Amino acid sequence: MQALLLIAHGSRRAASNDEVRDLAKKLAHVAGDRYELVAPAFLELAEPDIPGGVDQCVAAGASRVIVVPYFLSAGRHVATDIPNELEKARQAHPDIPIQQSDYLGMHESIPEILLMLATKSVD
Amino acid sequence: MQALLLIAHGSRRAASNDEVRDLAKKLAHVAGDRYELVAPAFLELAEPDIPGGVDQCVAAGASRVIVVPYFLSAGRHVATDIPNELEKARQAHPDIPIQQSDYLGMHESIPEILLMLATKSVD
Repeated sequence: MQALLLIAHGSRRAASNDEVRDLAKKLAHVAGDRYELVAPAFLELAEPDIPGGVDQCVAAGASRVIVVPYFLSAGRHVATDIPNELEKARQAHPDIPIQQSDYLGMHESIPEILLMLATKSVD
Repeated sequence: MQALLLIAHGSRRAASNDEVRDLAKKLAHVAGDRYELVAPAFLELAEPDIPGGVDQCVAAGASRVIVVPYFLSAGRHVATDIPNELEKARQAHPDIPIQQSDYLGMHESIPEILLMLATKSVD
Protein backbone atom coordinates (compact mmCIF):
# COMPACT_ATOMS: atom_id res chain seq x y z
CA MET A 1 0.00 0.00 0.00
CA GLN A 2 1.49 3.25 -1.21
CA ALA A 3 1.04 6.62 0.53
CA LEU A 4 1.72 10.12 -0.75
CA LEU A 5 2.73 12.71 1.84
CA LEU A 6 2.40 16.33 0.68
CA ILE A 7 4.88 18.50 2.60
CA ALA A 8 4.22 22.21 2.98
CA HIS A 9 6.19 24.75 4.97
CA GLY A 10 3.40 25.51 7.43
CA SER A 11 2.12 28.95 8.37
CA ARG A 12 1.06 30.90 11.45
CA ARG A 13 -2.07 31.62 9.40
CA ALA A 14 -4.52 28.75 9.90
CA ALA A 15 -6.20 29.39 6.54
CA SER A 16 -2.93 28.73 4.70
CA ASN A 17 -2.54 25.37 6.45
CA ASP A 18 -6.15 24.57 5.62
CA GLU A 19 -5.42 25.37 1.96
CA VAL A 20 -2.74 22.67 2.08
CA ARG A 21 -5.13 20.20 3.71
CA ASP A 22 -7.71 20.93 1.01
CA LEU A 23 -5.05 20.49 -1.65
CA ALA A 24 -4.17 17.06 -0.20
CA LYS A 25 -7.84 16.12 -0.56
CA LYS A 26 -7.89 17.24 -4.19
CA LEU A 27 -4.67 15.33 -4.75
CA ALA A 28 -6.24 12.20 -3.25
CA HIS A 29 -9.13 12.61 -5.68
CA VAL A 30 -6.84 12.99 -8.70
CA ALA A 31 -4.64 10.10 -7.53
CA GLY A 32 -7.59 7.71 -7.51
CA ASP A 33 -6.32 4.26 -6.61
CA ARG A 34 -2.65 4.99 -7.39
CA TYR A 35 -2.14 6.03 -3.76
CA GLU A 36 -4.30 4.44 -1.12
CA LEU A 37 -3.58 7.36 1.20
CA VAL A 38 -2.73 11.01 0.52
CA ALA A 39 -2.00 13.14 3.59
CA PRO A 40 -0.52 16.57 4.35
CA ALA A 41 2.38 17.27 6.70
CA PHE A 42 4.22 20.44 7.68
CA LEU A 43 7.87 21.31 8.12
CA GLU A 44 6.96 23.70 10.94
CA LEU A 45 4.17 25.76 12.52
CA ALA A 46 1.37 23.22 11.86
CA GLU A 47 0.46 19.62 12.56
CA PRO A 48 1.28 16.91 11.76
CA ASP A 49 5.01 17.44 11.42
CA ILE A 50 6.86 15.29 8.88
CA PRO A 51 7.74 12.31 11.11
CA GLY A 52 4.16 12.48 12.45
CA GLY A 53 2.80 12.45 8.90
CA VAL A 54 4.89 9.39 8.05
CA ASP A 55 3.68 7.73 11.27
CA GLN A 56 0.09 8.28 10.13
CA CYS A 57 0.83 6.74 6.73
CA VAL A 58 2.45 3.68 8.30
CA ALA A 59 -0.35 3.33 10.87
CA ALA A 60 -2.81 3.33 7.95
CA GLY A 61 -0.91 0.44 6.38
CA ALA A 62 1.54 2.13 4.01
CA SER A 63 4.38 -0.10 2.83
CA ARG A 64 5.98 2.82 0.95
CA VAL A 65 5.75 6.60 1.36
CA ILE A 66 6.36 9.09 -1.45
CA VAL A 67 7.03 12.58 -0.14
CA VAL A 68 6.24 15.54 -2.42
CA PRO A 69 7.55 18.97 -1.34
CA TYR A 70 5.02 21.72 -1.99
CA PHE A 71 7.80 24.27 -2.32
CA LEU A 72 8.85 26.70 -5.05
CA SER A 73 12.61 26.79 -4.74
CA ALA A 74 15.51 24.51 -3.97
CA GLY A 75 16.38 26.26 -0.72
CA ARG A 76 17.50 24.95 2.63
CA HIS A 77 14.03 23.57 3.37
CA VAL A 78 14.01 21.28 0.35
CA ALA A 79 17.72 20.44 0.36
CA THR A 80 18.34 19.97 4.07
CA ASP A 81 15.39 20.36 6.41
CA ILE A 82 12.95 17.94 4.74
CA PRO A 83 15.66 15.25 4.25
CA ASN A 84 16.60 15.62 7.94
CA GLU A 85 12.99 15.10 8.98
CA LEU A 86 12.69 12.11 6.66
CA GLU A 87 15.79 10.62 8.24
CA LYS A 88 14.01 10.71 11.60
CA ALA A 89 11.02 9.00 10.01
CA ARG A 90 13.27 6.32 8.50
CA GLN A 91 14.78 5.59 11.89
CA ALA A 92 11.28 5.13 13.29
CA HIS A 93 10.25 2.91 10.35
CA PRO A 94 13.39 1.22 9.01
CA ASP A 95 11.44 -1.24 6.85
CA ILE A 96 9.39 1.36 5.01
CA PRO A 97 10.92 2.95 1.88
CA ILE A 98 10.46 6.73 2.07
CA GLN A 99 11.28 8.67 -1.11
CA GLN A 100 11.39 12.43 -1.66
CA SER A 101 10.26 13.60 -5.11
CA ASP A 102 11.20 16.80 -6.91
CA TYR A 103 9.59 19.93 -5.46
CA LEU A 104 6.72 21.69 -7.18
CA GLY A 105 8.78 24.59 -8.58
CA MET A 106 10.92 22.16 -10.59
CA HIS A 107 8.07 20.85 -12.70
CA GLU A 108 8.38 21.70 -16.36
CA SER A 109 4.71 22.74 -16.61
CA ILE A 110 5.05 25.67 -14.20
CA PRO A 111 5.79 28.29 -16.91
CA GLU A 112 2.72 27.20 -18.85
CA ILE A 113 0.54 27.38 -15.75
CA LEU A 114 1.78 30.89 -14.96
CA LEU A 115 0.96 31.90 -18.50
CA MET A 116 -2.56 30.46 -18.16
CA LEU A 117 -3.06 32.46 -14.95
CA ALA A 118 -1.98 35.65 -16.71
CA THR A 119 -4.21 35.01 -19.70
CA LYS A 120 -7.22 34.12 -17.57
CA SER A 121 -6.91 37.40 -15.65
CA VAL A 122 -7.23 39.36 -18.89
CA ASP A 123 -10.19 37.53 -20.41
CA MET B 1 2.42 46.28 -25.81
CA GLN B 2 1.65 43.88 -23.00
CA ALA B 3 4.09 42.92 -20.23
CA LEU B 4 3.95 40.06 -17.77
CA LEU B 5 5.57 40.66 -14.38
CA LEU B 6 6.29 37.51 -12.38
CA ILE B 7 6.30 38.36 -8.65
CA ALA B 8 8.19 36.14 -6.23
CA HIS B 9 8.74 36.65 -2.53
CA GLY B 10 12.51 37.06 -2.80
CA SER B 11 15.09 35.23 -0.74
CA ARG B 12 18.33 35.90 1.14
CA ARG B 13 19.64 32.99 -0.94
CA ALA B 14 20.84 34.32 -4.30
CA ALA B 15 20.28 30.96 -6.02
CA SER B 16 16.56 31.09 -5.18
CA ASN B 17 16.25 34.53 -6.76
CA ASP B 18 18.15 33.27 -9.79
CA GLU B 19 15.69 30.37 -10.06
CA VAL B 20 12.92 32.97 -10.36
CA ARG B 21 14.86 34.91 -13.00
CA ASP B 22 15.36 31.68 -14.96
CA LEU B 23 11.68 30.89 -14.62
CA ALA B 24 10.82 34.31 -16.06
CA LYS B 25 13.01 33.46 -19.07
CA LYS B 26 11.23 30.13 -19.56
CA LEU B 27 7.91 31.93 -19.20
CA ALA B 28 8.97 34.43 -21.89
CA HIS B 29 9.78 31.50 -24.16
CA VAL B 30 6.40 29.83 -23.57
CA ALA B 31 4.57 33.16 -23.94
CA GLY B 32 5.98 33.69 -27.43
CA ASP B 33 4.48 36.88 -28.83
CA ARG B 34 1.56 37.04 -26.40
CA TYR B 35 3.69 39.19 -24.07
CA GLU B 36 6.35 41.37 -25.58
CA LEU B 37 8.12 41.47 -22.24
CA VAL B 38 8.28 39.02 -19.33
CA ALA B 39 10.23 40.15 -16.28
CA PRO B 40 10.71 39.08 -12.66
CA ALA B 41 10.20 41.27 -9.59
CA PHE B 42 10.43 40.61 -5.87
CA LEU B 43 8.30 41.56 -2.91
CA GLU B 44 11.40 41.84 -0.75
CA LEU B 45 15.07 40.84 -0.37
CA ALA B 46 15.92 41.01 -4.09
CA GLU B 47 15.86 43.43 -7.00
CA PRO B 48 13.92 44.79 -8.74
CA ASP B 49 11.12 45.41 -6.25
CA ILE B 50 7.57 45.49 -7.59
CA PRO B 51 7.30 49.21 -8.44
CA GLY B 52 10.79 48.93 -9.98
CA GLY B 53 9.66 45.95 -12.06
CA VAL B 54 6.64 47.88 -13.31
CA ASP B 55 8.91 50.84 -14.10
CA GLN B 56 11.05 48.52 -16.26
CA CYS B 57 7.99 47.25 -18.12
CA VAL B 58 6.77 50.79 -18.81
CA ALA B 59 10.25 51.96 -19.83
CA ALA B 60 10.31 49.07 -22.33
CA GLY B 61 7.05 50.31 -23.83
CA ALA B 62 4.37 48.34 -21.98
CA SER B 63 0.87 49.77 -22.30
CA ARG B 64 -0.49 47.15 -19.90
CA VAL B 65 1.12 45.04 -17.16
CA ILE B 66 -0.22 41.67 -15.98
CA VAL B 67 1.20 40.69 -12.60
CA VAL B 68 1.35 36.97 -11.74
CA PRO B 69 2.13 36.08 -8.10
CA TYR B 70 4.49 33.11 -7.85
CA PHE B 71 3.05 32.19 -4.45
CA LEU B 72 1.43 29.07 -3.04
CA SER B 73 -1.14 30.44 -0.62
CA ALA B 74 -3.54 33.32 -0.26
CA GLY B 75 -1.69 34.86 2.66
CA ARG B 76 -0.92 38.45 3.56
CA HIS B 77 1.63 38.73 0.74
CA VAL B 78 -0.88 37.94 -1.99
CA ALA B 79 -3.87 39.64 -0.38
CA THR B 80 -2.26 42.82 0.95
CA ASP B 81 1.43 43.32 0.29
CA ILE B 82 1.45 42.82 -3.49
CA PRO B 83 -1.68 44.99 -3.99
CA ASN B 84 -0.06 47.72 -1.88
CA GLU B 85 3.05 47.64 -4.04
CA LEU B 86 0.94 47.70 -7.19
CA GLU B 87 -0.88 50.75 -5.86
CA LYS B 88 2.47 52.55 -5.67
CA ALA B 89 3.17 51.50 -9.25
CA ARG B 90 -0.24 52.78 -10.38
CA GLN B 91 0.45 56.17 -8.81
CA ALA B 92 3.72 56.32 -10.75
CA HIS B 93 2.00 55.23 -14.00
CA PRO B 94 -1.64 56.32 -13.80
CA ASP B 95 -2.29 55.65 -17.51
CA ILE B 96 -1.06 52.06 -17.49
CA PRO B 97 -3.55 49.31 -16.52
CA ILE B 98 -1.88 46.98 -14.00
CA GLN B 99 -3.76 43.76 -13.23
CA GLN B 100 -2.98 41.08 -10.65
CA SER B 101 -3.82 37.51 -11.67
CA ASP B 102 -4.59 34.55 -9.42
CA TYR B 103 -1.53 33.17 -7.61
CA LEU B 104 0.12 29.92 -8.66
CA GLY B 105 -1.31 27.78 -5.83
CA MET B 106 -4.86 28.53 -7.00
CA HIS B 107 -4.44 26.88 -10.38
CA GLU B 108 -6.59 23.81 -10.86
CA SER B 109 -3.72 21.82 -12.39
CA ILE B 110 -1.58 21.87 -9.23
CA PRO B 111 -2.89 18.55 -7.84
CA GLU B 112 -2.15 16.83 -11.15
CA ILE B 113 1.37 18.26 -11.22
CA LEU B 114 2.06 17.09 -7.68
CA LEU B 115 0.86 13.64 -8.68
CA MET B 116 3.20 13.65 -11.70
CA LEU B 117 6.13 14.60 -9.44
CA ALA B 118 5.29 11.71 -7.11
CA THR B 119 4.93 9.22 -9.94
CA LYS B 120 8.14 10.35 -11.64
CA SER B 121 10.11 9.83 -8.42
CA VAL B 122 9.02 6.18 -8.33
CA ASP B 123 9.70 5.26 -11.93
